[in-house]
Amino acid sequence: MAVKRYLMAPGPTPVPPEVLAAGAEPVLHHRGPDFRELMLRCLARLQEVCRTQNDVLLFTASGSGAFESAVVNLLSPGEPVLAVTAGEFGDRWAALAATYGADVHELRYAWGETPRPEDVRARLEETGAEVVFLVHSETSTGVVADVQALAQAAREAGALTVVDAVSSVGAVPLETDTWGLDVVVAGSQKALMTPPGLSLVVVSSRAWERAARTTTPRFYFDWARMRASLETGTTPFTPAVSVVVALDTALGLLLEEGLEAAFARHAALGRACREGAKAMGLELFSPDEERSAIVTAILAPTGVDARELVLALRGRFGITVAGGHGELAPRMFRIGHIGYYDVFDITTALAAVEFLLVETGADVERGTAVARALEAYREAVRV
Amino acid sequence: MAVKRYLMAPGPTPVPPEVLAAGAEPVLHHRGPDFRELMLRCLARLQEVCRTQNDVLLFTASGSGAFESAVVNLLSPGEPVLAVTAGEFGDRWAALAATYGADVHELRYAWGETPRPEDVRARLEETGAEVVFLVHSETSTGVVADVQALAQAAREAGALTVVDAVSSVGAVPLETDTWGLDVVVAGSQKALMTPPGLSLVVVSSRAWERAARTTTPRFYFDWARMRASLETGTTPFTPAVSVVVALDTALGLLLEEGLEAAFARHAALGRACREGAKAMGLELFSPDEERSAIVTAILAPTGVDARELVLALRGRFGITVAGGHGELAPRMFRIGHIGYYDVFDITTALAAVEFLLVETGADVERGTAVARALEAYREAVRV
Repeated sequence: MAVKRYLMAPGPTPVPPEVLAAGAEPVLHHRGPDFRELMLRCLARLQEVCRTQNDVLLFTASGSGAFESAVVNLLSPGEPVLAVTAGEFGDRWAALAATYGADVHELRYAWGETPRPEDVRARLEETGAEVVFLVHSETSTGVVADVQALAQAAREAGALTVVDAVSSVGAVPLETDTWGLDVVVAGSQKALMTPPGLSLVVVSSRAWERAARTTTPRFYFDWARMRASLETGTTPFTPAVSVVVALDTALGLLLEEGLEAAFARHAALGRACREGAKAMGLELFSPDEERSAIVTAILAPTGVDARELVLALRGRFGITVAGGHGELAPRMFRIGHIGYYDVFDITTALAAVEFLLVETGADVERGTAVARALEAYREAVRV
Repeated sequence: MAVKRYLMAPGPTPVPPEVLAAGAEPVLHHRGPDFRELMLRCLARLQEVCRTQNDVLLFTASGSGAFESAVVNLLSPGEPVLAVTAGEFGDRWAALAATYGADVHELRYAWGETPRPEDVRARLEETGAEVVFLVHSETSTGVVADVQALAQAAREAGALTVVDAVSSVGAVPLETDTWGLDVVVAGSQKALMTPPGLSLVVVSSRAWERAARTTTPRFYFDWARMRASLETGTTPFTPAVSVVVALDTALGLLLEEGLEAAFARHAALGRACREGAKAMGLELFSPDEERSAIVTAILAPTGVDARELVLALRGRFGITVAGGHGELAPRMFRIGHIGYYDVFDITTALAAVEFLLVETGADVERGTAVARALEAYREAVRV
């Protein structure tokens, strides 16, 4: 028998069987009336999930492609932008903007730190940047920032916010309109429980006004061209039709569960993962707090190479977790829990980690992680 | 019972059931060893299909996105390029290059004309352009150009060729290396029998040399970044994993059939479609020749609005064919026949067209199209 596989990385994430099945339906033509109806419903559902009345644009591209669209539609060469970074993705957006000739100022934290609103305010005043990049969920560290507070600081300083919400939308609260977020970028393959291939951008009227003045050339990622097509229920270029069908189905499941219920489930999953890891005696890298509901970053015990642990989980048990980036790779592993997840996915991951660590003779507590995770989950969902 | 649907547009095209099923397998992580193996096999199969030893790059984007990658990797602002255009797609590539500040010279033909090598040669000498855009299959008109001859003229003038082969790869002969094509752009959703979402770019060493000197900024569509990742079997940004699985399966089917057999089948399908349409008394817009193997553009009889015919085919019979672009819309309809097609798809389309035309009282020959199409197909595959 083939090894049963468990996808427990922070993206792509497991896709529900009915979503996979929807994606396998015969391909629709993207200019036909049935696709039009599907696309318009899908966009309306995305608005609901993002809690917004703003325009939602849907690109056939990864989340990085969608973030690039924000850069080329909002920043002309030489214009200052503040990139807040405390990990892999914050760094990527700074590099992306620099590639397009923006005058990039960085508000840089050590990996694992949580960005502070007062720092954003101070750096915006100092630099005069009119656009700020924020990362909602930094999956390289497990930190979920307080985007509401950061965006408020940005707004008070007169700057437009561009929020990388690739792994957070659908998992933790994100109130696009209430929090006044100008641009929100997300991907299909995280908490939205859909295969990768689509990414979305939510654009406020302030962002549209700015985009109209931006001189950076763009074609595939041009927002105005995309909006003009989407208003008629299609796209300017052939979209990943099957992924749109899958996404629409997954959004239906998410909205059926209810956003608040989904947020509570994710918070409980995060808590279960942290409590289980701690019960084993492991040290957390991601903050031990309610918002850490996307991915739990854990440090391997002394003497254990996290890279070996990640390889063994996959090689022996078919469990894919994520390793650490860069210099954290020898020490860190990350268990993702966004999207189509319940607590028994967490206990599976913890049980396998415990088994392998005990086998290597590492100093971990045996037999407590699974029970503690289940207990913590039950406590959390009761709250 | 729901209306049975027939997708007969020149893309997206029907996808074989086993390819749809492969795309519905549980999602793989794009950094894992199983995906790496899959991706490397898929790239090798694409080389085989494109008849090349050059690098194949795979982007999560439509064919237009992949063509944009050619523009931003090959042309610095102000550099001259010759865009050969005789239809919708030729026009699009000219507009795309102009957006990025290239000095675009057009070799423009009336829609439906076939570009001539001597014109390419003359215009390259006149303009000094070092890059030329060619469209292999112009799906807006049904014309398949003699890319071998056009590319030879370009090569003799010292220019790099960028070939839009989005709808031609896998359907008609395309010899990337033998014909000396520098860049070939294609999509997953045409003759490659895969859902849309992926596009590929084949890059010659001459094109790599030029790309190294190009100053146009690029990030998502940067060739060098993509090649560096693909060499290790993954991509810099999360790819449409499920579409890669589907594409690999479809390429397996295509190579099992054999490229030469697939070319012969497509040529026979084109011939069957033309002979059937002519037997009905309809006038062809696309050339009545062997290379017209992608899509057959047909003129509606006098007094019939082609737009109404297209709507009726879909509304009453569930058959999606394509209409004409722009000013050709009232007169033209197009039957696609690339990819997962056999002659009974052609006879279905012709029978439905005949039925509707007879019903409107149009002056068409009744009862001959289907038989003539089958006969022509049989003659063609015997040859």
